[in-house]
Amino acid sequence: MKLKLKNVFLAYFLVSIAGLLYALVQLAAEQLRQKDLRISQLQADLHRPPPAPAQPPEPEALPTIYVVTPTYARLVQKAELVRLSQTLSLVPRLHWLLVEDAEGPTPLVSGLLAASGLLFTHLAVLTPKAQRLREGEPGWVRPRGVEQRNRALDWLRSRGGAVAGEKDPPPPGTRGVVYFADDDNTYSRELFEEMRWTRGVSVWPVGLVGGLRFEGPRVQDGRVVGFHTAWEPNRPFPVDMAGFAVSLPLLLAKPNARFDATAPRGHLESSLLSHLVDPKDLEPRAANCTRVLVWHTRTEKPKMKQEEQLQRQGRGSDPAVEV
Amino acid sequence: MKLKLKNVFLAYFLVSIAGLLYALVQLAAEQLRQKDLRISQLQADLHRPPPAPAQPPEPEALPTIYVVTPTYARLVQKAELVRLSQTLSLVPRLHWLLVEDAEGPTPLVSGLLAASGLLFTHLAVLTPKAQRLREGEPGWVRPRGVEQRNRALDWLRSRGGAVAGEKDPPPPGTRGVVYFADDDNTYSRELFEEMRWTRGVSVWPVGLVGGLRFEGPRVQDGRVVGFHTAWEPNRPFPVDMAGFAVSLPLLLAKPNARFDATAPRGHLESSLLSHLVDPKDLEPRAANCTRVLVWHTRTEKPKMKQEEQLQRQGRGSDPAVEV
Repeated sequence: MKLKLKNVFLAYFLVSIAGLLYALVQLAAEQLRQKDLRISQLQADLHRPPPAPAQPPEPEALPTIYVVTPTYARLVQKAELVRLSQTLSLVPRLHWLLVEDAEGPTPLVSGLLAASGLLFTHLAVLTPKAQRLREGEPGWVRPRGVEQRNRALDWLRSRGGAVAGEKDPPPPGTRGVVYFADDDNTYSRELFEEMRWTRGVSVWPVGLVGGLRFEGPRVQDGRVVGFHTAWEPNRPFPVDMAGFAVSLPLLLAKPNARFDATAPRGHLESSLLSHLVDPKDLEPRAANCTRVLVWHTRTEKPKMKQEEQLQRQGRGSDPAVEV
Repeated sequence: MKLKLKNVFLAYFLVSIAGLLYALVQLAAEQLRQKDLRISQLQADLHRPPPAPAQPPEPEALPTIYVVTPTYARLVQKAELVRLSQTLSLVPRLHWLLVEDAEGPTPLVSGLLAASGLLFTHLAVLTPKAQRLREGEPGWVRPRGVEQRNRALDWLRSRGGAVAGEKDPPPPGTRGVVYFADDDNTYSRELFEEMRWTRGVSVWPVGLVGGLRFEGPRVQDGRVVGFHTAWEPNRPFPVDMAGFAVSLPLLLAKPNARFDATAPRGHLESSLLSHLVDPKDLEPRAANCTRVLVWHTRTEKPKMKQEEQLQRQGRGSDPAVEV
């Protein structure tokens, strides 16, 4: 009996040891499982991207502004293009179409575009001889930049090749607006946000043009009812090249809309716009056309008398230095 | 003996069970310790700030560029200042000292500065009548902007009050450089980084000035050995106002260095620089003075013939619209 009791105790002891062992193993396994879970949670947290900081709307959500700039070789060309490219670099979602009046791309313009940091398309077309300004003719006799602006329209319509930069025209359905910005005007960065959401054709005043402090649309009740201008107020669209922008879909929907090099003086803008819009449907911008955000500035032609003198003495400015 | 053997087995069994239990507990504890370590490592990783993206040096580490611009009321004033302010907005750590040639601040300039987003100090001082250009006199007879530049120097030296913007002059020990930037020139944004680390007086070429493609220092072995200029090459410093910058500590160490309104034509720059530096110690910038990064552009005075005609008819441009 004594021995039997001992056996009972022994069996009880062994069973309880086994139970204890089992419980311990379970407990340890559970704790390890918990820790593993925590580790995998923490690892997931680590690999989750950080929360995005508060930001302006994604540039991808904005319509693209296509800025068309005709340019030609002259002493102040680089200065003007540097100044303009720096202004454009302040505008998001902008694509610069720079069109040289030349047979092909020049090193000066190619280098400037490459260094600009802008999204650009480099185009080139020489103005036909018959359209070119003759020596001594005043500038207003023949409109300048017509072929170049039309070449940019051709490219937008997939009808013309680019020499450098972005060579593919905008794919169908691209939201955008087209603005003709000569290289000598002065542009406030605010102007570009005024034009960005143009539905058809938007308009605004231009400073220091046409012999006036400014020219621009007259607006009543949010609609264009006339134009403030001194010169031929009865032109269909008495607006300066710098005073309007056209939506890209509208331009693409009217494939015949282009500038007419033979248009009478002051009618170049009308030659394009009359294909596109009725004057009463113009969209006034810049606080109902009461704010001047672009100025028709002209840069003086620098005098080179001393340069010519020094060159005759073989001491002219180093031609290897680009100006 | 039989029982004794059983007891030995029992004792051995109990000891080995105890050893097994101890080993198991140690093993589980070690595993838990490992997991705890991993968890605390992961938590530390989570709270560590994300690695900084590759960035330019903190703006605070850069010397400040003090850009001194004299300006006067004229038709193209706003256009010029908008264009310049937009260029300056591309330059980090820049402080614009805009000095009006006027008895006090004008609404046009005050509004423009407030909207510019720049760090600025607005100053104003009227040019004394004796120094002013007379009707019909060519521009080069009397240097323009002398009083205004000197007023900016006074402010930097804690000797003149500002009308708006940052009114406290730079505290002692401020690292900086001072540049005199007229409101009609064209500036590449690159120019400002060339001048930022000026120790004494730095120099570079200026395009389209003095009747030449460019004027500028001639450099040999990294030192200025002469100047390319057509006009009075023997002036102490035949450099344009746009062609040099002076370190702020140097300007403050020479309290008598200022512009002399009575200096002969072309000697205005020399009247300041001869207080500050020996020509042989000029610091050439812009790739040893072989790159043109600033152009002495001049904007045409707009013709207002039509404006005068319309005004006589009571139909002039709305004076409430700022141009």
